[in-house]
Amino acid sequence: MTDAHVVGSGMIHFGELKEKSFDDTIEEAYLALLDDVDDGVAPADIDGVWYGSADIAGEGSSGVTVAHATGLFETPITRVENACATGSDAVRNARIAIEAGQADVAMVIGAEKMTDDTGGLIAAAALDRLWRGRGVTMPAFFGMRATRHMDQYGTTREQIAEVSVKNHENGTKYPYAHQQFECTVEDVKNSPTVSYPLNLYDCCPVTDGACAILLASEERAGEFTDDPIRIAGSGLATDSFMRGDDLALTNFPATRHAADQAYEEAGIGADDVDVAEVHDCFSITELVTYEDLGFCGQGEGGQLVADGETRLDGSIPVNPSGGLLSKGHPIGATGVAQVAEIYEQLRGEAGDVQVDDPEVGVQHNIGIGRNATGAVSCVNVLDRR
Amino acid sequence: MTDAHVVGSGMIHFGELKEKSFDDTIEEAYLALLDDVDDGVAPADIDGVWYGSADIAGEGSSGVTVAHATGLFETPITRVENACATGSDAVRNARIAIEAGQADVAMVIGAEKMTDDTGGLIAAAALDRLWRGRGVTMPAFFGMRATRHMDQYGTTREQIAEVSVKNHENGTKYPYAHQQFECTVEDVKNSPTVSYPLNLYDCCPVTDGACAILLASEERAGEFTDDPIRIAGSGLATDSFMRGDDLALTNFPATRHAADQAYEEAGIGADDVDVAEVHDCFSITELVTYEDLGFCGQGEGGQLVADGETRLDGSIPVNPSGGLLSKGHPIGATGVAQVAEIYEQLRGEAGDVQVDDPEVGVQHNIGIGRNATGAVSCVNVLDRR
Repeated sequence: MTDAHVVGSGMIHFGELKEKSFDDTIEEAYLALLDDVDDGVAPADIDGVWYGSADIAGEGSSGVTVAHATGLFETPITRVENACATGSDAVRNARIAIEAGQADVAMVIGAEKMTDDTGGLIAAAALDRLWRGRGVTMPAFFGMRATRHMDQYGTTREQIAEVSVKNHENGTKYPYAHQQFECTVEDVKNSPTVSYPLNLYDCCPVTDGACAILLASEERAGEFTDDPIRIAGSGLATDSFMRGDDLALTNFPATRHAADQAYEEAGIGADDVDVAEVHDCFSITELVTYEDLGFCGQGEGGQLVADGETRLDGSIPVNPSGGLLSKGHPIGATGVAQVAEIYEQLRGEAGDVQVDDPEVGVQHNIGIGRNATGAVSCVNVLDRR
Repeated sequence: MTDAHVVGSGMIHFGELKEKSFDDTIEEAYLALLDDVDDGVAPADIDGVWYGSADIAGEGSSGVTVAHATGLFETPITRVENACATGSDAVRNARIAIEAGQADVAMVIGAEKMTDDTGGLIAAAALDRLWRGRGVTMPAFFGMRATRHMDQYGTTREQIAEVSVKNHENGTKYPYAHQQFECTVEDVKNSPTVSYPLNLYDCCPVTDGACAILLASEERAGEFTDDPIRIAGSGLATDSFMRGDDLALTNFPATRHAADQAYEEAGIGADDVDVAEVHDCFSITELVTYEDLGFCGQGEGGQLVADGETRLDGSIPVNPSGGLLSKGHPIGATGVAQVAEIYEQLRGEAGDVQVDDPEVGVQHNIGIGRNATGAVSCVNVLDRR
């Protein structure tokens, strides 16, 4: 059994990319990847592709989408979809193929054209008719989670806003982020109400984007770079309000199950994690995820962010890239871009958002599906040791 | 490295399942699988799920769909989509995970609710706006392929109709088929024109359905059955009219590339194949696929079927289950059901459609995407030897 290593990444500037087609964004990420690999990679080196897209714009179904943009027609290309965990699950599946020896060199490419969604598919795809028919949207769901956390643990509105403040500050330093502006706690609190207590600056924007990474087996990784980063563990789990586990509404059992799987496989504990890119679709989501990933105890997420521990210079920096709140959340691209950022961080190449000498990094997504806001979660652990 | 073996299958009666929800069909296939495994399987044995659905009805995105219907919430569930090759690519990915040791026991479940498609998504998802805007539908595309094959190789209308006659005859003997009626060449020729030369009986119906199979590693397979069937090879490739390869319009280069990959991995040639389940979305598709899979030479598909060689008692029986033409084509379920049928055939348990002592079986899908009718193809080889 070989281990899968990340050996390159190709990121594009996320944003409202009205001037680019869906295929354009895939091509751009692919070319950025080819350009990024230290010692070069030829298209013929790539013997498998895992492609993540939720196909929000209705143009991204099936692997041929990627073949059109890259020319990799004779290469197996599998499309993976898993709600907002689409990108990270594509990474997970490519990693498995490397381990199986079914690919020695695999590309993961994630892409989403969110701003072409004219049919409301984003909402329609995510939540059961049970909820949609009652006007329960995604911000409403996460708003309820926020008020529940505030009630249960004394988490304050200001602590929740601190997540947005931190991530927007990071985003101004991250070259590919969509919404690059700084804001204060007061700015967040004074931004327009979306669903109490969440305001506009507590919500990630609607963003187009694509990102590609290259994986290689242990045996082949050295052909591409002297500094490959091993994917040491992965986890994937689902959840539902129907189960009862999630009735507390304060945390995400799916994240806990996925993290348990990934940490166990990687042979690490939460204390070993030096940097994380987590799913901050809303500010409250990141705060709760601190607890679910074990960065602090139950109910302590608000204090953790208020104490600055998750800032770039804190004890456990979270979302140095600016997270979904600043960078944006093009669904299929999000998880791949998070892995790309952890790869850069562990190589010490993260530029203005570099954290201090990290060795272990975690990437995390949570996805909405059916009747639950934490219906699916995927966690990948990268380890340079 | 271990090999993946099929150790059980759960098939439901395909049809217009208006009385069942999408989840109902998944649950039914899952329960049928649990019931089918010779020596039993417990839900806790399943440590990974690959789920194939094109999500035509808009209720099947993400892995949580399967978790809801099965209760497998803490088990990783990946959704795979690859146009009409969705089911077979889900099998391919589950096989890879078994080989990697990431799952010792994996379920593949494919499902599609085609008759709930009120928005024309089936057509919209499949073809580029380039073609849709010109009125080019799927039957039109395959009709052009038929006339081209007739012109190039002297294939006759009657030979094409023989595919439908054979598959409908098989379907009357296959307990799960949707459209169970026999027809003659004259019946096919006299059925309503859809797109010349293809008539109604040359086209697969619109069908709901689900199917599950269980895979296990070589080490674990014996726990579930004394007669596991090894998946010996898989292939996946894409194609586009833009490439030029496909300009002849007579055959499917993607099938040839996928078959090359699968045969090479399995260490077989086309001559070794004893039985096949292939993608007969239209009668012409099966005829052309004989050539692409190497069951006969280029241009000889018409003669092969006219000579009866692909009948149950022929030299290379194709679509003993009745194929898509009779059984139906619920996209995500189709490839999984084909593998289930090959599994039954190689175990000698295929009942009234059993062929004579087969040892090697091939499963094949082709999918439409973007601008091509053969945009993606997936081939799996099963070998009992």
